[in-house]
Amino acid sequence: MAYSGSPIRIAELLYRPKHSLIDQSLHSDLGAETTNGDGFGIGWYGVGEAPGVFRSIEPAWNNRNLRDVTEHIESPLVFAHIRAAIGSAVQETNCHPFRYGRWLFMHNGAIREWATVKRDLALAVDPSLYASIEGSADTEVFFYLALTFGLEDDPPAAIEAAVGYIEETGKKHGVEDPIQMTVATTDGRLTWAFRYSSERDSRTLFYSTDVQTVRNLHPEVEALQLLSDDARFIVSEPIGALPGAWNAVPEWTYGIVGQGQDSMHPFKPRAPAHPTAIPAGV
Amino acid sequence: MAYSGSPIRIAELLYRPKHSLIDQSLHSDLGAETTNGDGFGIGWYGVGEAPGVFRSIEPAWNNRNLRDVTEHIESPLVFAHIRAAIGSAVQETNCHPFRYGRWLFMHNGAIREWATVKRDLALAVDPSLYASIEGSADTEVFFYLALTFGLEDDPPAAIEAAVGYIEETGKKHGVEDPIQMTVATTDGRLTWAFRYSSERDSRTLFYSTDVQTVRNLHPEVEALQLLSDDARFIVSEPIGALPGAWNAVPEWTYGIVGQGQDSMHPFKPRAPAHPTAIPAGV
Amino acid sequence: MAYSGSPIRIAELLYRPKHSLIDQSLHSDLGAETTNGDGFGIGWYGVGEAPGVFRSIEPAWNNRNLRDVTEHIESPLVFAHIRAAIGSAVQETNCHPFRYGRWLFMHNGAIREWATVKRDLALAVDPSLYASIEGSADTEVFFYLALTFGLEDDPPAAIEAAVGYIEETGKKHGVEDPIQMTVATTDGRLTWAFRYSSERDSRTLFYSTDVQTVRNLHPEVEALQLLSDDARFIVSEPIGALPGAWNAVPEWTYGIVGQGQDSMHPFKPRAPAHPTAIPAGV
Amino acid sequence: MAYSGSPIRIAELLYRPKHSLIDQSLHSDLGAETTNGDGFGIGWYGVGEAPGVFRSIEPAWNNRNLRDVTEHIESPLVFAHIRAAIGSAVQETNCHPFRYGRWLFMHNGAIREWATVKRDLALAVDPSLYASIEGSADTEVFFYLALTFGLEDDPPAAIEAAVGYIEETGKKHGVEDPIQMTVATTDGRLTWAFRYSSERDSRTLFYSTDVQTVRNLHPEVEALQLLSDDARFIVSEPIGALPGAWNAVPEWTYGIVGQGQDSMHPFKPRAPAHPTAIPAGV
Repeated sequence: MAYSGSPIRIAELLYRPKHSLIDQSLHSDLGAETTNGDGFGIGWYGVGEAPGVFRSIEPAWNNRNLRDVTEHIESPLVFAHIRAAIGSAVQETNCHPFRYGRWLFMHNGAIREWATVKRDLALAVDPSLYASIEGSADTEVFFYLALTFGLEDDPPAAIEAAVGYIEETGKKHGVEDPIQMTVATTDGRLTWAFRYSSERDSRTLFYSTDVQTVRNLHPEVEALQLLSDDARFIVSEPIGALPGAWNAVPEWTYGIVGQGQDSMHPFKPRAPAHPTAIPAGV
Repeated sequence: MAYSGSPIRIAELLYRPKHSLIDQSLHSDLGAETTNGDGFGIGWYGVGEAPGVFRSIEPAWNNRNLRDVTEHIESPLVFAHIRAAIGSAVQETNCHPFRYGRWLFMHNGAIREWATVKRDLALAVDPSLYASIEGSADTEVFFYLALTFGLEDDPPAAIEAAVGYIEETGKKHGVEDPIQMTVATTDGRLTWAFRYSSERDSRTLFYSTDVQTVRNLHPEVEALQLLSDDARFIVSEPIGALPGAWNAVPEWTYGIVGQGQDSMHPFKPRAPAHPTAIPAGV
Repeated sequence: MAYSGSPIRIAELLYRPKHSLIDQSLHSDLGAETTNGDGFGIGWYGVGEAPGVFRSIEPAWNNRNLRDVTEHIESPLVFAHIRAAIGSAVQETNCHPFRYGRWLFMHNGAIREWATVKRDLALAVDPSLYASIEGSADTEVFFYLALTFGLEDDPPAAIEAAVGYIEETGKKHGVEDPIQMTVATTDGRLTWAFRYSSERDSRTLFYSTDVQTVRNLHPEVEALQLLSDDARFIVSEPIGALPGAWNAVPEWTYGIVGQGQDSMHPFKPRAPAHPTAIPAGV
Repeated sequence: MAYSGSPIRIAELLYRPKHSLIDQSLHSDLGAETTNGDGFGIGWYGVGEAPGVFRSIEPAWNNRNLRDVTEHIESPLVFAHIRAAIGSAVQETNCHPFRYGRWLFMHNGAIREWATVKRDLALAVDPSLYASIEGSADTEVFFYLALTFGLEDDPPAAIEAAVGYIEETGKKHGVEDPIQMTVATTDGRLTWAFRYSSERDSRTLFYSTDVQTVRNLHPEVEALQLLSDDARFIVSEPIGALPGAWNAVPEWTYGIVGQGQDSMHPFKPRAPAHPTAIPAGV
């Protein structure tokens, strides 16, 4: 879940809504796993330049520190993620969101046959970034690949290059549909959200429509009056059941949200011609 | 879940069966909460007199230490429990099974309006035992009440006294149906299992039928050949779907299992005339 | 450690100074235990009425969430505590500071022969507060005793009553020197700090002298220029080694700090004539 | 600490002796860090082929699960390790001992300028093993390098090759003294222990002398009567202060212990002529 808009207490985002993220951690309707109890993470912007990150391997739903910290921090841009581990270790360094400098990155989905392609993908990470990899999760390497391919300069192009490279590498190893993903990344100003899968059957992704429109549709909902006009949510599953509030992001598409902007674009993976690193043994 | 029979690697009990306890921690069909991710515990007998206990606040399903430890311990008597916290703190000292000397104790259900009756019940715990209470869970106090009322001498009478006292105390405070419970306790030789609720609508409890019978019914199931004739399981939800393997324990009933014994008896709570404890300083 | 003054990033307090609290958690010079690795906690005021609390059973020195959260929260009043457990369970609900409504409370020292006096002291806690006790630590009961005896109305009198009651109870059970303590408590406006021990040989307690004076003594120290004139620290061990910056609090004394105030008073425990609590059901 | 000999309850090794490993975790006399509170691990052989491993990021000294599990497992070969993290994440996958198949591996010391050499060393790990790396610690990569260079066939040669390669790689990057180490590894039958540092100023390593000799020297020590004649300890710091019980392993030396064997040999690192993998970008 990603939020951008007027500063809001993070707990309002996590605990207040019906079918909130915390509730989804117990009962996911649309996700691949019905329970997401293998850790969680939040990232937010506020005091200081770099975003804060709070990650834990405990289930989100009963974590008191998460509740207390989020009750006491207001932020105009929040990422939150709940994790269902599929094999890889349950450890904080595998929890999303991942952070590098001013950037946050999170991912639902999987790089398929991770054990098979992990080495080749890790080798393509810029050598100056390699030592910063701390965990064993596919998403961390995906993030560092995107950084290697220019995330800080042109996020859509970098994600397209990373996904193209992941698909090329997967195919080289005989993996049929190498990636399934919804990804969100931000530099603290804009948020980019991507929906893609090699097999064109991607996990769901929704964005909230223009708050003003929804306010007019639902003058009876008080919470909507508190949000600024430019508030936007990006989620895997709709929060609450307000008709007209949520739009599905189409297949193979990414959106840009923040600072008045709000646009959709087609997403086309393309492997870089000369990846920085040349995989060993080739 | 409680097992008694020939020594078996604990991991065989926890991970091997279809619809095992670990699986139930993710997808409970019959429990009040569909996910049980707020800690787990196991207790077992083996080396030494007292049972071992391993409890954790992490979800059971991805805990590697649980898997490793249980792969390397064989035991003829194992208790295992998964917890869904309802309000009280997620901490090891609230995880089942609880231990005192040679005894283990675990509980599914709740003492209703716990905050209202907690103090009166804790006061009835024998003063010499009071300081051993380490957590905030209703079950821990329930266990110490049972010890106060003679668990080590006559388990069924002690549980009947404890439940009677809980019901009397609840009613004094206007609690309608003061207790809902399935309880198992053991001294390492015999296991006692209780099914009861004030409203006569108790959580489910099953025991496995005589292994010999089931072997004859299902000669095709190899695992059954490994179990000793006197092996017995007591569970909240059946493990596996073998027709004829599981019997529901009736309402307001307790059973005794172990060392050849195998019997059912009616359960009748009765508050003790003179609860042991006279509050200090009065 | 307690800080009050102009809002400051909490991380500046915890990590910046030489011989900081985090450093003390590894190498305590004056404490009873040389390592304090059994959990930590911070409490702070900021967004919302009630203080935030973040506690963990992991050692403070390598906890990344602690670092990140404190890098991103500014507060005018911060409590921080590191714990060396002496017997009682290592669990978050035993970590300081403890919170009730707007109040925070923390303690270095011990109620002696805790297992012996625990029940009598817990019984004296107001019945309406009893169910809020979640852990097994002496300090939590101490705090609830102080609340029972009027902490929210007159903190020094309530602490004197609680300590008096603890000493009276200890003596009844033959405990020679029932309490050893430095205590700090706050309502978010003022902070009260107490130094006392039955044997008149109390753990150390220091307060920082007037910032203006220290600035004049040490114009070369930049950090001092950032602090407001009314900034005050209360600590068990001096942070840094600035001559003239720290004053020892005398034996059997308490101080009040905050909002311009700054005073010292003698501390005289006196057991209440009629402890509030009459054990239920008697 | 490594133990081999007659089966012994693991808790006897960890908690019983004066100046035990648990005690050392609080007060190390000879280690580089005086406190080792960033996790611990034990590995042992017993039920089943592969060793069991129990690792945790909590301090060892108050961990109840560690105490309970070790009270209930007997083993003829035990590895135990306490960790002081220097920068890398505090997570279970960074805790020693590391395991692969029947092998355990643990290390005191450091590969110097780890961030600089990490990528080159990871690239030299056999591609079929690379994906098994789960953490970010230097020791894990060291272990996989040793496996790559034949640990399972000839442990001393494989460690010599790994250390040689680490030194060669370090020097290529301008690292002055690339490695400081005491290492122990075992296949469940024999244990190999190594003492080495590039600068020939290695951390201490001791082995216990022949039990029979010590028994004769100290007939008054009862614990010695329980140990089998072939019992051996390998430790970083002596356990207890029995004169004549401990021998320092010399610089640049390794020993083999187990099954009657007991020998010392010089240790000479030598980089393999053709490391399996060719580092990328070369």
